Amino acid sequence: MPNYYDELDAVLRAVADPTRRAVVERLAKSPAVVSELAAPFSMALPSLMQHLRVLEDAGLVTSEKHGRVRTVSLRPGALDVLHVWLGEQRTPAEHQADRLAIHLNRAT
Amino acid sequence: MPNYYDELDAVLRAVADPTRRAVVERLAKSPAVVSELAAPFSMALPSLMQHLRVLEDAGLVTSEKHGRVRTVSLRPGALDVLHVWLGEQRTPAEHQADRLAIHLNRAT
Repeated sequence: MPNYYDELDAVLRAVADPTRRAVVERLAKSPAVVSELAAPFSMALPSLMQHLRVLEDAGLVTSEKHGRVRTVSLRPGALDVLHVWLGEQRTPAEHQADRLAIHLNRAT
Repeated sequence: MPNYYDELDAVLRAVADPTRRAVVERLAKSPAVVSELAAPFSMALPSLMQHLRVLEDAGLVTSEKHGRVRTVSLRPGALDVLHVWLGEQRTPAEHQADRLAIHLNRAT
């Protein structure tokens, strides 16, 4: 089990690349077989497989092989570490705005 | 005004680096002068300035010079683009879990 910082680092490095980000966006809709994932990119299959390996190493995707077909899925909660980090970066002004919003919601 | 994808790309590339991420984490607490930002890193000042330039180009930080002192601040809403992207990556199962949570909240 990697620690929070290692996991965050791996996830951010993985999604900083636009091709890998497009793969994550596609898989958020539903699992897909490798040939489907490759279709939108003008990219040799070995290059795509390498991107998938980075995503798998970062814990963002899992894959399963049935016969000759490999299906790739987004791992549930894969991006949670990024949610946590973003939450921690809220500035004091943003926290204050949150509290004001809660107050106004209660007052109405 | 950069478009959403360019902005997202610049922000993710900026925070994928651990030094730049540490600077963002520090600035989320309060603005800081450059020498304060440099202190925790065993890094030459020109290298830190280069990281700050990447953060500034990505729209994450702003800086102001008063006399010889440059103060760097996290731009309010700087990470919003990342919040939006994360929201879009919620899987159908996660959306279903959200709806169930809302239903259970209403039922109690």
